[in-house]
Amino acid sequence: MTQPVRLGLLGLGTVGQGVVNVIARSGDEIERRIGRPLVVTRAVARDTARQRDCPMDGIELGTDAAALIAADDVDVVLELMGGIHPALEFVEQALRAGKPVVTANKALVAERGNELFAVARKSNGVVAYEAAVAGGIPIIKAVREGLAANRIHEVAGIINGTCNYILTEMRARGVEFEPVLAEAQAAGYAEADPSFDVDGVDAAHKLAILASIAFGMPLAFGEMLIEGIRGVRGQDIELAEEFGYRIKHLGLAKRGENGVELRAHPTLVAADHMLAKIDGVTNSVLLKGDAVGSTGFYGPGAGAEATASAVIADVIDVVRGNAQTVPGLAFAESGLNPLPVVPRTEIRSAWYLRMQVADEPGVLRSITSILADSQISIEAILQKEPRHGEDATVALITSVTREGDFDEALEHMLSLPFVRAGVSRFRVEH
Amino acid sequence: MTQPVRLGLLGLGTVGQGVVNVIARSGDEIERRIGRPLVVTRAVARDTARQRDCPMDGIELGTDAAALIAADDVDVVLELMGGIHPALEFVEQALRAGKPVVTANKALVAERGNELFAVARKSNGVVAYEAAVAGGIPIIKAVREGLAANRIHEVAGIINGTCNYILTEMRARGVEFEPVLAEAQAAGYAEADPSFDVDGVDAAHKLAILASIAFGMPLAFGEMLIEGIRGVRGQDIELAEEFGYRIKHLGLAKRGENGVELRAHPTLVAADHMLAKIDGVTNSVLLKGDAVGSTGFYGPGAGAEATASAVIADVIDVVRGNAQTVPGLAFAESGLNPLPVVPRTEIRSAWYLRMQVADEPGVLRSITSILADSQISIEAILQKEPRHGEDATVALITSVTREGDFDEALEHMLSLPFVRAGVSRFRVEH
Repeated sequence: MTQPVRLGLLGLGTVGQGVVNVIARSGDEIERRIGRPLVVTRAVARDTARQRDCPMDGIELGTDAAALIAADDVDVVLELMGGIHPALEFVEQALRAGKPVVTANKALVAERGNELFAVARKSNGVVAYEAAVAGGIPIIKAVREGLAANRIHEVAGIINGTCNYILTEMRARGVEFEPVLAEAQAAGYAEADPSFDVDGVDAAHKLAILASIAFGMPLAFGEMLIEGIRGVRGQDIELAEEFGYRIKHLGLAKRGENGVELRAHPTLVAADHMLAKIDGVTNSVLLKGDAVGSTGFYGPGAGAEATASAVIADVIDVVRGNAQTVPGLAFAESGLNPLPVVPRTEIRSAWYLRMQVADEPGVLRSITSILADSQISIEAILQKEPRHGEDATVALITSVTREGDFDEALEHMLSLPFVRAGVSRFRVEH
Repeated sequence: MTQPVRLGLLGLGTVGQGVVNVIARSGDEIERRIGRPLVVTRAVARDTARQRDCPMDGIELGTDAAALIAADDVDVVLELMGGIHPALEFVEQALRAGKPVVTANKALVAERGNELFAVARKSNGVVAYEAAVAGGIPIIKAVREGLAANRIHEVAGIINGTCNYILTEMRARGVEFEPVLAEAQAAGYAEADPSFDVDGVDAAHKLAILASIAFGMPLAFGEMLIEGIRGVRGQDIELAEEFGYRIKHLGLAKRGENGVELRAHPTLVAADHMLAKIDGVTNSVLLKGDAVGSTGFYGPGAGAEATASAVIADVIDVVRGNAQTVPGLAFAESGLNPLPVVPRTEIRSAWYLRMQVADEPGVLRSITSILADSQISIEAILQKEPRHGEDATVALITSVTREGDFDEALEHMLSLPFVRAGVSRFRVEH
């Protein structure tokens, strides 16, 4: 009889239950692929009494993570608890115990990955993390293996489903951020504390991981430019539409001569671009490589079973021995180069700018003069007639410009007496 | 010093030159990933005198494939010649010589893969074939590894760039098949003999491979339903548009209770579906799995360097030892089940039907009666007024129906005296 692969789950929340359910339902099909059955033998959870939405027969449920890691009947440790502590300590403990680890923990990999992969190398161990980025889309595998012949120079992705859901709803129904967020929270698409998602941190975690494995650099989450979507107003979405764009929250990484740009922020994307067409909680990642050209991936970025799909794919890679042969950050240790991160003010991009201005003569002249003095061209401009005594709205798209120069011009504009507070500014990607 | 990986190329045409160019340009980046340099030591071509678009220094160019396969300075054999003979013999020869093989040859894998993988198993060898399907998109890896936790029940893909280019141009410019094909041939997007592409055979080869690795069944190319795009008229594209659809040439594989459907044919796809938005020579594959849900991939389906990207990714997998651990057809030998292929008449789908009819009373009554008698509902119908003495056009979309029933109803309709020859009928997918 073939040996089963015995899995120990640290955490039995949404993803953990998804893993148990997928194995219960499709274990026979997985065994047809790999020739061995997968069996969940142990799980650890804070609350062992809670009712679970998965079959628990044969699973020894406890609270002692160290015991699970050390247990003879656990071949692979699945870290599905999230957060950095104590997940980090448990993963390192498993590595020292010689057990391969599969994790879905993007914060852990993005923020502590450099040391984690060093520990894994030293112990000849493995930390697999397909589920940490873009849920069910096998994007880590695509970058580390499928596109390994490429000098990848750009990664652009819709990698936070909550942001994309909110922006999609705002546009579809013409409503503002706050009510959509409240609905999303009620529907379970957004957390009670949504800041991690809507302020861009989650997308930044994922982008930091993608950039590292695409470019061959150590993780540089701390150097990322991070902006969320709280500042996007319904009016901006409408104006962007009039200019031919959609507003999407993107993770963006670009490799250029002066270093790499690492950013996560709301972005105007041309309406006919593939990323503009990704709606709702779907994730999508676009990669540009020197050999392949542009290639893209889309699918569910979250959800119990979509994430379980990625977790179990990693388990299968571990069983086949494949996870062990691919370096943690895609490049051999000696091949990792700490590339300089381009400072925010040196980033070059086009801008969307919306200002509310008093309805006075000379307003447009002043604005256009300031931009012209800074050598910034205006690619498109719209002025909306003020309604009964309200301020007028001016919106424009600039040429590609150095961010520091745009900052200065904007500061200059904001000092004009007729410009009101509450300016919107978002980068435009072509 | 680290050992270089020495490659021998059987064929130095478009793809072979792409491989040489990518390694020449990005070999340093690839070495950073895998810790060893890739070197092309030998190549075999029919015409050794021809000028090549790639650096030839260090490559021993000859005409003797057997000598290349046997050569001590060839670690991996790349079969980039295409066609079944003598490619099959050379691949088997390489396997018997204990050398891993990477191929871009879809005809070879689709039509002779069952025996080829059997030979590979017996010799403990490997035949890697990422480049055989959808060019630079790492779709074989996604199905065999990235989505290995899933019971995949559907694959749908735009997997022939020539067909998609022609249909895209026909729609964009309102022109007919023949002039666009002539242009595509002049531009190099279509072969001098285009039948392989436009008659659906190439898409069928790729679909047969995808279905096998998605469902865990031996290759069943011989049982596929294959239709090309020669019968698509400009009028059909316009009428489909009025119904809210685009016409795309799709490879489709579905796994159901009665077996699998394996088909490649022009298909009406809802205009807002992701596959409808794939234009030009781009390829795209959509997969549905029980855990992941729907996930899709798009990118260049052909081209020298996009295909080279896939070929070199396979080489890297071979070097890492990963290609050797994944079964050729994704499932362990004992896990491959020869699933029954649903006969054409038993396939259930909706239909688009266009008929030219004489402008007489009672025409619509006769057509609708025949469909009603066959229990086929009409979901949408359009009749266009005839212009000065021409026939009238009737176009309709049916409910989902058994193909045999639709055949019978259509035969009945065609026997009506007022129905002209030249009916168009295409399946509709939802």
